[in-house]
Amino acid sequence: MVQPLRSLEVLRVSTQSRPAAVAGAIAGVIREHGQAELQAIGPGAINQVVKAIALARTYMQNEGSDLRCAPAFVDLMLNGEERIGMHFLVEKKAGIAP
Amino acid sequence: MVQPLRSLEVLRVSTQSRPAAVAGAIAGVIREHGQAELQAIGPGAINQVVKAIALARTYMQNEGSDLRCAPAFVDLMLNGEERIGMHFLVEKKAGIAP
Repeated sequence: MVQPLRSLEVLRVSTQSRPAAVAGAIAGVIREHGQAELQAIGPGAINQVVKAIALARTYMQNEGSDLRCAPAFVDLMLNGEERIGMHFLVEKKAGIAP
Repeated sequence: MVQPLRSLEVLRVSTQSRPAAVAGAIAGVIREHGQAELQAIGPGAINQVVKAIALARTYMQNEGSDLRCAPAFVDLMLNGEERIGMHFLVEKKAGIAP
């Protein structure tokens, strides 16, 4: 059976998402998979993603690690409508021991 | 004479900032100093920073490089009032030749 190279779930973040909850999810996925992916549409949701990544950095720094992120534009569907959103790849900072 | 270790200017981004202009500034600072710093207050301004970093990544990728960013909370003064903003350190992705 062929296994997918990776099957990471993308964390979808909205304006209503709590940054601390998203940060906990990021840290959990990073600990298991080494990287996490998030998507958001609109300034309010993107703001929550950025706050969550900043918080997740403090969680990981307490474990002697650190995070970096790579934002990119992505076409997403929202309520049947095509929207341009942002995709965030979050990964451990290279050069820091796991 | 003692020179400062580094004297990077922090790019201050507002809701009105054009992402393409900010992206050009990021790429310029990164080419000269290897990293750039940005600050923004509020979802609208943070959204412009994220779009600018995504655009700057495409500029740098055309030169065979890539960028990563590290967001962090920061206390800032806006119109004489203390506000919590976001600080973004942007640097070349480690492991990719300059």
